[in-house]
Amino acid sequence: MALRHYTLDLSLSAAVDSAAIVPGLLSVFDEQEMTVTVHDTSGHGYLATLVGKNGRLAILRVHSHGLVTIDLQCYEDDNLAQIDNLLNALEKKLKVLLNGNITRIKRLPALVRGAKVDRYWPTTDGRMSEYDIDRVVYEEDSAYQNIKILHSRQYGNILVLNGDINLAESDLAYTQAIMGSGKENYAGKEVLILGGGDGGILAELVKQKPKMITMLEIDQKVIDGCKTHMRGTCGNILDNLKGDCYQILVEDCVPVLKKYVQEGRTFDYVINDLTAVPISTEPEEDSTWEFLRLILDLSMKVLHPSGKYFTQGNSVNLTEALSLYEEQLGKLSCCVDFSKEVVCVPSYMELWVFYTVWKK
Amino acid sequence: MALRHYTLDLSLSAAVDSAAIVPGLLSVFDEQEMTVTVHDTSGHGYLATLVGKNGRLAILRVHSHGLVTIDLQCYEDDNLAQIDNLLNALEKKLKVLLNGNITRIKRLPALVRGAKVDRYWPTTDGRMSEYDIDRVVYEEDSAYQNIKILHSRQYGNILVLNGDINLAESDLAYTQAIMGSGKENYAGKEVLILGGGDGGILAELVKQKPKMITMLEIDQKVIDGCKTHMRGTCGNILDNLKGDCYQILVEDCVPVLKKYVQEGRTFDYVINDLTAVPISTEPEEDSTWEFLRLILDLSMKVLHPSGKYFTQGNSVNLTEALSLYEEQLGKLSCCVDFSKEVVCVPSYMELWVFYTVWKK
Repeated sequence: MALRHYTLDLSLSAAVDSAAIVPGLLSVFDEQEMTVTVHDTSGHGYLATLVGKNGRLAILRVHSHGLVTIDLQCYEDDNLAQIDNLLNALEKKLKVLLNGNITRIKRLPALVRGAKVDRYWPTTDGRMSEYDIDRVVYEEDSAYQNIKILHSRQYGNILVLNGDINLAESDLAYTQAIMGSGKENYAGKEVLILGGGDGGILAELVKQKPKMITMLEIDQKVIDGCKTHMRGTCGNILDNLKGDCYQILVEDCVPVLKKYVQEGRTFDYVINDLTAVPISTEPEEDSTWEFLRLILDLSMKVLHPSGKYFTQGNSVNLTEALSLYEEQLGKLSCCVDFSKEVVCVPSYMELWVFYTVWKK
Repeated sequence: MALRHYTLDLSLSAAVDSAAIVPGLLSVFDEQEMTVTVHDTSGHGYLATLVGKNGRLAILRVHSHGLVTIDLQCYEDDNLAQIDNLLNALEKKLKVLLNGNITRIKRLPALVRGAKVDRYWPTTDGRMSEYDIDRVVYEEDSAYQNIKILHSRQYGNILVLNGDINLAESDLAYTQAIMGSGKENYAGKEVLILGGGDGGILAELVKQKPKMITMLEIDQKVIDGCKTHMRGTCGNILDNLKGDCYQILVEDCVPVLKKYVQEGRTFDYVINDLTAVPISTEPEEDSTWEFLRLILDLSMKVLHPSGKYFTQGNSVNLTEALSLYEEQLGKLSCCVDFSKEVVCVPSYMELWVFYTVWKK
């Protein structure tokens, strides 16, 4: 059973003597039959914990520098209206006790901890974000990754790979961006997709009548999950691994790319829908950058001299990771140029950078 | 000084005996010199509070139904690397102690409580969301409202009125949606904007060479703030209250609309950029709905028979508020029809409904 964690914080224009407000606050708790423990903080303000029935816990802190924080934890099956009333009463009492001294009252949505369905998926740049996810639609551990498809009220189903939000049914903007934002003409062209197991790019591409699309997706279980649960993204395109102008090879793209290089095969477009730019720049992540450069190098080798390579980058706020990626572009075995675009992908809750790369 | 609040939660496949893990966990805290208090929870699991130096506080709960929660509070100027190490050590120890019994480990971004600049602006549908806001650019209390302009790394400056995110410099999508999503031809037309003090609609409209745009914005201080700090939205359009094809009247729109009705004046387009649909459906909010209906009724009276009325609705998840709004459309003094569109406005972090209304 989940734990609901409420917070109520008051920022003050001046420090307040805890003796002036604590009795009033404790009186609000009186009818809740909670056991109060006052702790010694060695001069860091007033701190009391209150333990009540049904696993309720409150923490009352009057910090020594003009801040009052209250935490309230209860179980999901508690009387939530009563909890709400308690918080209302505390807020009301504090407004009276601190009259004129309050610069901000902040009462955040309750954190729901240990819920069956997890709604918290922080952004890539490390900010808290809560999704309107109400159920898990699909969950599998494949040989390669943990695959989840979660249902969001507003975004439709969301594909999550190893804990990373990949794509939601609302995210046509992602697919359009990684296809060149409507500025390309794919008719009669040879296209290679790396990854793309959700089928979004493939489904949009076939509408443009290219000569042939080859998609290299390593994970059959991603295809299986998306085929059933991400139809807002892939339509019926994943129902068959082959069609008039496309083929899906369920294979690791690296050996296939190497084979294409050997055969001298080229493509007008290579769309890399594999992984985001590695976030960490730690030494142990070197292998990720190496992998990324390997893919880039192989892709350039199979790219027609006048062809284009599209890929997603990362959150616009991860400036260091983006710079490192751009550095990699300077280290390839052939000279390339690139442009980038910032796009709003609805379910990401952060702006995202997409790259276009071409041979100089 | 802000309080940083860390959480570390482990969901378990089966309940665990606290005696099996508590000593191990407490040993991790040992070198932190914290004073432990074990509380009586009347059968609701194990609960200990640990109070340390510099105002540090930890709460350790082993719930009786397969959940372990740890809270850790410290001040912003604490040794945050040490705090991180402590959390890492706790997580590592728990993984060993609960080996095979863990279904989820969740360590959320730290909540920053009582910070000088508030980064938490929950969505309209009540979800936690943290913005990448790093400074307050403008703050004024006008006769009508509290006006803030906050700087976001990714969204540019954000206008916040009475605590509601109104528009960011990144949000051209909002302006385009409330102008009919590029499907209208404003050339040579008479347009009325209600509100719109950020200047976004006005700046986009003038590009289309309408005959005349009249904008009714009540709050000079919104105009002043946006003129200086929202230039990504308004450009230089707010530098003058009058231009070749526009005039801004700094007035309450209601008496002006009434005057227009009396004069028999009509517009080809009325764009209501005033307030969102009231969220609450409580009786005390009746006046908000009445105000909304008054504006709608007056707008319809000044709307040319073949004209269009555009307005924002609300979060797509607030289905009840949206239904109530649509009900209001059936209660107007003239018969109307409407269509709606769901749009992703980058800084909103939730999908938003926009309405087009016209006379039947």
